Amino acid sequence: MQDHLPEPEPLSALVDALRRLPGVGVRSARRMAYHLLQHDRKGAQQLSFALSHAVNHLRHCKRCHSFSQDEICETCLNPKRDDSLLCVVETPADQNMIEASHGYRGLYFVLMGSLKPLEGVGPDDLGFDKLLERVSDGKVQEVILATNFTAEGETTAHYLAEMLKSRGLRVSRIARGIPTGSELEYVDAGTIAWAFIERRSS
Amino acid sequence: MQDHLPEPEPLSALVDALRRLPGVGVRSARRMAYHLLQHDRKGAQQLSFALSHAVNHLRHCKRCHSFSQDEICETCLNPKRDDSLLCVVETPADQNMIEASHGYRGLYFVLMGSLKPLEGVGPDDLGFDKLLERVSDGKVQEVILATNFTAEGETTAHYLAEMLKSRGLRVSRIARGIPTGSELEYVDAGTIAWAFIERRSS
Repeated sequence: MQDHLPEPEPLSALVDALRRLPGVGVRSARRMAYHLLQHDRKGAQQLSFALSHAVNHLRHCKRCHSFSQDEICETCLNPKRDDSLLCVVETPADQNMIEASHGYRGLYFVLMGSLKPLEGVGPDDLGFDKLLERVSDGKVQEVILATNFTAEGETTAHYLAEMLKSRGLRVSRIARGIPTGSELEYVDAGTIAWAFIERRSS
Repeated sequence: MQDHLPEPEPLSALVDALRRLPGVGVRSARRMAYHLLQHDRKGAQQLSFALSHAVNHLRHCKRCHSFSQDEICETCLNPKRDDSLLCVVETPADQNMIEASHGYRGLYFVLMGSLKPLEGVGPDDLGFDKLLERVSDGKVQEVILATNFTAEGETTAHYLAEMLKSRGLRVSRIARGIPTGSELEYVDAGTIAWAFIERRSS
């Protein structure tokens, strides 16, 4: 389309840049660009600053691999956390959800993804070597695998369990089952089947 | 969620800024932020620059109201265009699509929206006064209304038709009917009904 219309260069450059966002195609990018330029120029400037600020000030925490402004993030430095427990998650969003549950007071290791052999994401890309180094600090007693219950998350958990158990570490996986508050009638069959397989004596 | 985790400030600021994009909720914003920071820092910097560049260099063409780097845009200044025809569209994207059809060689006026009484978007917000000024240049003979065939686009076209006809201008509306290449079996009933109402003798 841009061949036909002499579209101003800053506009087409903005549309191109917005298309680099995941899940944004050319139509969405255009709608976003028009919206920002027509109705929210302040928002555009705010986003521009936030992007460069984040790129310039965020790095990976040396200990948990999550995003951090400092060499070691606040969570890892928090003396109130139980440093004998290490929870492995895929993303900082997962970590946030676990924190919001108030059900865990140990430390974290963030993979920033999951194993995707077909897309060429392997153990090196997820920092498995850094995880091995992390769990060898003499304090970690148990590694809790909290990757997603998707094919990729399960593969990652399985791979990590084998790797960590072979080093003599205690490894566990968060429970799979019926969500709290659910009525069986509305739970999918796969989840119910797993809830039976993983039933526990009461 | 941000209350629970000491999330680094540049990250939460970026997520907040991304949420200002239309159609982007907190989960999408987070996914975008992680993607850019983890896999495409160059893209983040490119987007940052494109945003500030566009905000600083794009304004509205004085004649057609579309985005332009200059006071009058290239399309309006093009001596090869037929200045007796003025096509009114909702967005620059619509203008692009018309250009891509190679079916029109006149000039444009871009409303940058459509009448939305319920959301408080009225004639003043769409520059109807500028349109009236524009059609009074002594050259425009016919105004072609090419707003969308949605409730809002139709309302806008109706309003504009009344307004322009009362000034003695020739006003037309682009045709509604069966899309080229369609099989009737797969066309929605409303479109078929309109195609009958707007049938023309052959």
